[in-house]
Amino acid sequence: MIPVAIVGANGYSGEELCAILARHPSVRVVAVTSRQHAGKKIGEVLPRFASRGEFSELVFSNPDVPGLMATGAEYFFLALPHGLAAEFAAPLFEAGKRVVDLSADFRLRDAKVYREFYGEPHGAEHLFPQAVYGLPELHREEIRKAALVASAGCYPTSILLPLVPLLRQGLICVGDISVSSASGVSGAGRKAETPLLYGECNESLRTYGLPKHRHLSEIEQELTLAAKSSVVITFVPHLAPMTRGIHTTIFTRLASGVASESILPALESAYAGEPFVRVSRNLPDTKNVNGTNFCDLSVRYDERARRLILLSAEDNLVKGAAGQAVQNFNLMAGLGETEGLL
Amino acid sequence: MIPVAIVGANGYSGEELCAILARHPSVRVVAVTSRQHAGKKIGEVLPRFASRGEFSELVFSNPDVPGLMATGAEYFFLALPHGLAAEFAAPLFEAGKRVVDLSADFRLRDAKVYREFYGEPHGAEHLFPQAVYGLPELHREEIRKAALVASAGCYPTSILLPLVPLLRQGLICVGDISVSSASGVSGAGRKAETPLLYGECNESLRTYGLPKHRHLSEIEQELTLAAKSSVVITFVPHLAPMTRGIHTTIFTRLASGVASESILPALESAYAGEPFVRVSRNLPDTKNVNGTNFCDLSVRYDERARRLILLSAEDNLVKGAAGQAVQNFNLMAGLGETEGLL
Amino acid sequence: MIPVAIVGANGYSGEELCAILARHPSVRVVAVTSRQHAGKKIGEVLPRFASRGEFSELVFSNPDVPGLMATGAEYFFLALPHGLAAEFAAPLFEAGKRVVDLSADFRLRDAKVYREFYGEPHGAEHLFPQAVYGLPELHREEIRKAALVASAGCYPTSILLPLVPLLRQGLICVGDISVSSASGVSGAGRKAETPLLYGECNESLRTYGLPKHRHLSEIEQELTLAAKSSVVITFVPHLAPMTRGIHTTIFTRLASGVASESILPALESAYAGEPFVRVSRNLPDTKNVNGTNFCDLSVRYDERARRLILLSAEDNLVKGAAGQAVQNFNLMAGLGETEGLL
Amino acid sequence: MIPVAIVGANGYSGEELCAILARHPSVRVVAVTSRQHAGKKIGEVLPRFASRGEFSELVFSNPDVPGLMATGAEYFFLALPHGLAAEFAAPLFEAGKRVVDLSADFRLRDAKVYREFYGEPHGAEHLFPQAVYGLPELHREEIRKAALVASAGCYPTSILLPLVPLLRQGLICVGDISVSSASGVSGAGRKAETPLLYGECNESLRTYGLPKHRHLSEIEQELTLAAKSSVVITFVPHLAPMTRGIHTTIFTRLASGVASESILPALESAYAGEPFVRVSRNLPDTKNVNGTNFCDLSVRYDERARRLILLSAEDNLVKGAAGQAVQNFNLMAGLGETEGLL
Repeated sequence: MIPVAIVGANGYSGEELCAILARHPSVRVVAVTSRQHAGKKIGEVLPRFASRGEFSELVFSNPDVPGLMATGAEYFFLALPHGLAAEFAAPLFEAGKRVVDLSADFRLRDAKVYREFYGEPHGAEHLFPQAVYGLPELHREEIRKAALVASAGCYPTSILLPLVPLLRQGLICVGDISVSSASGVSGAGRKAETPLLYGECNESLRTYGLPKHRHLSEIEQELTLAAKSSVVITFVPHLAPMTRGIHTTIFTRLASGVASESILPALESAYAGEPFVRVSRNLPDTKNVNGTNFCDLSVRYDERARRLILLSAEDNLVKGAAGQAVQNFNLMAGLGETEGLL
Repeated sequence: MIPVAIVGANGYSGEELCAILARHPSVRVVAVTSRQHAGKKIGEVLPRFASRGEFSELVFSNPDVPGLMATGAEYFFLALPHGLAAEFAAPLFEAGKRVVDLSADFRLRDAKVYREFYGEPHGAEHLFPQAVYGLPELHREEIRKAALVASAGCYPTSILLPLVPLLRQGLICVGDISVSSASGVSGAGRKAETPLLYGECNESLRTYGLPKHRHLSEIEQELTLAAKSSVVITFVPHLAPMTRGIHTTIFTRLASGVASESILPALESAYAGEPFVRVSRNLPDTKNVNGTNFCDLSVRYDERARRLILLSAEDNLVKGAAGQAVQNFNLMAGLGETEGLL
Repeated sequence: MIPVAIVGANGYSGEELCAILARHPSVRVVAVTSRQHAGKKIGEVLPRFASRGEFSELVFSNPDVPGLMATGAEYFFLALPHGLAAEFAAPLFEAGKRVVDLSADFRLRDAKVYREFYGEPHGAEHLFPQAVYGLPELHREEIRKAALVASAGCYPTSILLPLVPLLRQGLICVGDISVSSASGVSGAGRKAETPLLYGECNESLRTYGLPKHRHLSEIEQELTLAAKSSVVITFVPHLAPMTRGIHTTIFTRLASGVASESILPALESAYAGEPFVRVSRNLPDTKNVNGTNFCDLSVRYDERARRLILLSAEDNLVKGAAGQAVQNFNLMAGLGETEGLL
Repeated sequence: MIPVAIVGANGYSGEELCAILARHPSVRVVAVTSRQHAGKKIGEVLPRFASRGEFSELVFSNPDVPGLMATGAEYFFLALPHGLAAEFAAPLFEAGKRVVDLSADFRLRDAKVYREFYGEPHGAEHLFPQAVYGLPELHREEIRKAALVASAGCYPTSILLPLVPLLRQGLICVGDISVSSASGVSGAGRKAETPLLYGECNESLRTYGLPKHRHLSEIEQELTLAAKSSVVITFVPHLAPMTRGIHTTIFTRLASGVASESILPALESAYAGEPFVRVSRNLPDTKNVNGTNFCDLSVRYDERARRLILLSAEDNLVKGAAGQAVQNFNLMAGLGETEGLL
């Protein structure tokens, strides 16, 4: 049993990590942290975790690096706001621990881009070269060897999985990609803010974060890698009245000479061996992926307008956060990639 | 008081018509029809309408043309499925009655297009030349004089209102328009079908109707009129877990030489005198328009990708159906355009 | 046009008051207050109110009594937290203004009971004798003459309307009344608190406020008045995953010798002339009353257990708050009781 | 690996059985049936089950007894409507197979009561003596030995778990029990009926099934067994706008001489060793049990009215249906009771 710690276990992603790791056959959770609830048992703060054996007896600790080092954990899952995550990741990594960071702090290769999109530097940008972008379908072999994995974000996962194989193979136009995504409200975190109240979100569908959502930085980084030329996209996120789920609709065009019929097979073949990507003729629906680590993909071709439509659905808290983090961990730890996730 | 009849009063659009017309200061509803509930009082079938004075005492009749003619109604609102609506519209119109049709039967100018998109002809295509497309912001003066108004559809309204003024003025690229819309479930009607069950729609966001939704026909017809050149767009509708509301996100490009700053003023100026179109810097949210006849519009420019994003929100049952129908009626009847709608 | 002010216009009840009063044919809203948004136009803060003529141009002011006096308003609607409301009600009342208070500050006749249930006194308990409990169906004539009306609470309205006529006529057991109610989340106010987040309320049904909810005080006061003997009930409120609506289920027993068949007629007869109470054989459903000032009532008798079940549904923000306040105002101002409410 | 069949795998309970049994470590699902989808792969009909290894390859068969016998299954889970379930249970049982029936067909000991509540006899009432009521917390030892287990219903589980220990110990009044429950819409099944549409259930809270819900029969049977005297209760079920979850609120009185403080300890002690019943001071909330086989219980005492309030929450599809069925199966098969359920 591998000892792990969950830093920031009281947010929605942290809670989902708890749910997955408490049942993971090769893991023992040895520490959970929460500033707000330090000193309380997890089963009291989050009643869904009561009566689950020794897991329920875990007591939230106040997160600090020496305390975390003393827990004996070998792997640290960081479910913290960006900026704060780096304050834990750096010393833990430098002490030889292995870190799965769910924040955006180490997803970018270029510190300038980080500063442009996140407004200020964080204190550990020198670690960028050693961090691996944690989307297993794109970087599996590097993740296996990494000690610092920056688990990919929720929107990016839903956008990269359909696009990357097509860009790698030159099947679509690099210069013509527009993305409309809708996320459940849990994507905004467990923050006591008026716009996230039930009364504000129910019967409400709205855009936000326009025109330059922070996730654009990692999306374009990975698309550019795939295309081997600079990719700039338009991305419009929406908030939808549901707790979980991201649905993404991508408008693009076929590269010159490419037949529309070749797209679905290209995706099927790219993901043939992947345990968590399902390519199908069926239109994706968030309810089919909620509670799972799957990302569902499909394709339609609009012959009239000669435009390609790519569609995806995932659970923002699982494949978009905690499940993906565990998938990365499984790779890092040499476990079966699907352990604890099916 | 103008006597009116609501044909098909038990669907969601018909029920909303009842709600609006029962309070309309210049209208007396003299007949409501429903095949399924013929013989029952409206206040029994739809308990929200109980105890509302004489309106509650209206008895659903089985719809047939002679019976409708005998009610004394001067205006007939048809909230019926396409194909069926024409069977009522034609004889009523030919008998000199004035008809507001909420179905798609008379929205197209070209019978070939109707057949292409709806699969078969209906029996009254000869009336196409006399029907007016019922979007007051586009065709107000024709609507005033018309005896057969085909009230614009819900998705079309949310797409045409932001696009038409920009196309008319040549501000955007005719050839690069992609639309992603999300509708509340009431848009699918009160049909007892499994995919519309609560358990199937809650926590579900999905695309449907791809790649050639029927509404494309009327959207492109009106866009083409505005642009004075053929417009073909890509349109992806989604079903969102809410009862009411349509949110539309449009991706397009500025025409050559047009400054991005000119778009919001262009919309403001186009709709300056319009009572039901609100142009604002705020991002539209369906909850702000639900229960109203407003359509909210806004704009963002993505400088990085040089793409224009147009956004709109409306209540699919009001500005997208019943409210728009009453707005058309008000024009036809020479009443104040906002009567009963504010 | 009667000039009125809405003090605390940015909460859910205040916003609903705005919606109703902006359309009220005999009212001109001359002031709206909000500490948080002072200086901003109402149409900016609450976009649903944009483009509604002069109403949209109202600027939120910081609430203070001299400022309110200077507005020229004759009637003041107070949509403020309990305790705070009294700080406005007392000086306004003493200056000869008429006040409709939506808070609990003046609903009780006995200051001791106020202190028991609300934890501390407020500064204007001396006005209790001059305040009238604002449930028109119970105290219409006193309301007409009152200058300080304490509009009845949401749960109390849903519980008193079914019970009071039966207690007045001695038809049910005073000593055996248990109440289970469920409210939409807007009942908790627009407060940025974690338990009210979308992610916490969706797919959640829970009890709260047990065993001694503050509303018990006014409920039992009015039940005791009706029964002419002390009534103590059990009341269990629940939070349900919806924005609006209260549904109440009451378990009681018939008084000795009373036939179960007499209960529905007793309610029908008690409310025969009431414009906003609908008694029916149909089981109440919150969706039938949402957006209206109706309270729907029904009855079932459980012959096997010899227990009477009373059921009610109302919109907590309308008949449970803003609509009721306007109904009270209409009576105070000598207007038609239903003005602006149908 | 024990071979099992799921008969009626396309309803909500059947689908949940699939989800649980597909991951059960000691089970191999060898057959799934669905009249409607016979011939199609389960992963096509229910896309959430795609790409889950051999489970996804299962093809729905048309249910008939000889076909089921030929599958090699040793255990048969019947997720069928009442009446129909008996047509499969009887021949399978008589052929020596072991049956877990999720319907109501074998929950009652008295055929007269079945006919009274379900309107007509079914063809296998002669098996009543051999069937065991499948609520493990009440009948564990009998379930272990049974070949025909009638898995307890959703409402009954939420009502029996709090009441039975208190009745067994004589702590509460047998004659004064009133129950108000609210269920998510999935409790009504995947039936294409208008009242279950999203547009009818969203923002709707309503009672139904009054005054004599069918589940009363099994509830009272088990309460009477526990109390050793006849128990008749009042039960009011409600439909709440959520997919999953049942919340139950019970009003009762303490038996003479019983201290209110003794109730929580009595429940704690009764369920001390139970893996799936959590007794706590926290008020139950359906979101804490959704997706789990837990039933959460709590207690409050209303000193003012001298009334005891018992509260419970469960997932109607798990502890109220599929999870309970698997818990029963685990006992029948001599497996660990929690296998596949934690």
